[in-house]
Order: sequence, then structure tokens, then C-alpha cells
Amino acid sequence: MTDLKNVPGNYTDTNPDTEGFTFNHTMIRVKDPKVSIDFYTRIMGMKLVRKNDFPNAKFSLYFLGTFDEKEVLDLPKDNEERRGWVLSQKSILELTHNWGTENDPNFSYHDGNKEPRGFGHIAFKVPDVQKACERFEKLGVTFQKKPSEGTMRSIAFIKDPDGYWIEIV
Amino acid sequence: MTDLKNVPGNYTDTNPDTEGFTFNHTMIRVKDPKVSIDFYTRIMGMKLVRKNDFPNAKFSLYFLGTFDEKEVLDLPKDNEERRGWVLSQKSILELTHNWGTENDPNFSYHDGNKEPRGFGHIAFKVPDVQKACERFEKLGVTFQKKPSEGTMRSIAFIKDPDGYWIEIV
Repeated sequence: MTDLKNVPGNYTDTNPDTEGFTFNHTMIRVKDPKVSIDFYTRIMGMKLVRKNDFPNAKFSLYFLGTFDEKEVLDLPKDNEERRGWVLSQKSILELTHNWGTENDPNFSYHDGNKEPRGFGHIAFKVPDVQKACERFEKLGVTFQKKPSEGTMRSIAFIKDPDGYWIEIV
Repeated sequence: MTDLKNVPGNYTDTNPDTEGFTFNHTMIRVKDPKVSIDFYTRIMGMKLVRKNDFPNAKFSLYFLGTFDEKEVLDLPKDNEERRGWVLSQKSILELTHNWGTENDPNFSYHDGNKEPRGFGHIAFKVPDVQKACERFEKLGVTFQKKPSEGTMRSIAFIKDPDGYWIEIV
């Protein structure tokens, strides 16, 4: 185990200036929200907890997370309270839909894993990688790497409807 | 408030097949880990909780999260146990460093917000956006959008050392 204290750049002092900072969400753009919402709720088990439309700028935002049933039973009804609730969570996925992209057959977003590279993937922990991947296969999900491929047998990579990579671990 | 039940594609049934699925982490590639680890620990208040080196393939992975002090007091020392602990968390940021990129003055990653677009940003919830941004300014952080700019005064966007956008909300 690397001694993390000695990793170059690692600042380990207690810092009151950053108290309460929380990594809340990751945003990716999606071509067709109907397809993406179906994928992330039905196939990946996420719950849609907020939607925000911006008619003047012609885009919508969708916020999803992996929650137990009971965690989302009493979501605030009020829009501002709901916003606060979503911001108080961790591991939120924000999908941005710029209206109209779903109607352009030639339109696609960049997954970050071909040049120019940058963003890599999001990852889902699942109770049983093998079982989850058998289900993904049955549901017609596209694989980037099946558990049986390559040297790392305990992980897989699938693709979401826009081609973004999702690690299954 | 939109009735989320009626959002096209939204699957709201209880599904035992996806029980325990958790959105665990987001991975981005970074040019120089020393600079990025400094940024995410000192400026953003994250804690480095795992590092994994792959000497044969010449890359390293760094895992960070926003935790209270007490949450990381007793991290497992054993490497496999540590892996399990990190996987049981939410809102982990994984930084991938392909060895050597830090020595190439012309090397840079793609932030996803110029063409070709795709990935948008990660977001940090902070207790006080104004105060956090004044501190970022003092620390020399690059802004994409200050709170005073544009129509949305309650949010800001800063850039990490590779140019990835971070929403401050």
C-alpha cells in the first residue's frame, strides 16, 4: 500500500476553508433524453429526482442518482427545496439535453476515449459483476469490454446510448 | 414542478435486478498528478484515499473524495480491503495519469466543452459560493464564469489544472 501522505502534491492538513465542500454531480450531454432516461432508470437502476427546463435557452437538465426506495419516498415537492435536496446528495448524474439534437440523424456527442481524449468514464458498483453483465447482454446493451475479455476479469465496460463508457465493478 | 413519473423513458417500478447498483466514481485523465492532486486536495478539499500503479502499462490511478475527517480516520490498510472501501463510497473522483505526459509541454487533454463536445463538468456543492469564489481568486484559480457574470448569480465555474470545468454551487 502506497503511503498516501507522501504522494506528491497531497495536502493532508485539516482545512476549515474547504469544510462542507462536496463533490455533488457529474454532467454529460445526451442526444435523446427519452433513450438516456430509459437506459439510466430501467437498465442502471437510477432514479430521476429532478428535471429543469430552460425554454428560452432551449435545453433541459435531468438529475439522477442511485438511491434506496426509502431515500426518495419523500422528495420535496417545492422546486427550490428539491434543488437543495439534490445538492445535498452525492453521486448525482446530470444529463444535459440541448433541444432538437434527437432529431438530427448525424448528431452525436464525443465519448472522451477517442482522440481528443479527456473524460474517461463513470462507474457503477454492482453486487455481482458476472450476473449484472449477463443481464446487460440480455437487454441488448453494447459492451466495450466483457468481464471475460482482457486481463481484468473483475470489471467490465458497457456503453450508454451516447457511447459514454460505464465501468461495471 | 414537473411530474417526474410522466417524463418520457422514466422507469419507476421497483426492480430487484438493479438493487445495490451504486454510481461510484467519475474518471478523468490528468496530465500531471502532482499538480492535480495539489489542486483537488488543497483547493477543493478532497482526500486522496487510494493510489494504484500499473508499472507494466505505465499508468497510475488516484482516487479522491470529499469526506469528513472522521470518515477517513480508519481506512483499511490492506490493498484489497481499501479497494472495497473506495467502491462502497459515492462521489469518488478517479484521476488517470499516463506516465510521461507531464514532461511534454505540448500535451493537453480535451475538456469536453469545445468541439467535439460531450462530457461537461463535475460540480462541488459549497456552503457559500461567494466566499468560496473569493478564496479561489486569491489562490489564483482560473474562472470560466464568476458568480457576477451571466444570468445565474448563484453558481460559478472554475477550471482544474487540465482545463476541466468545475461548477461551484
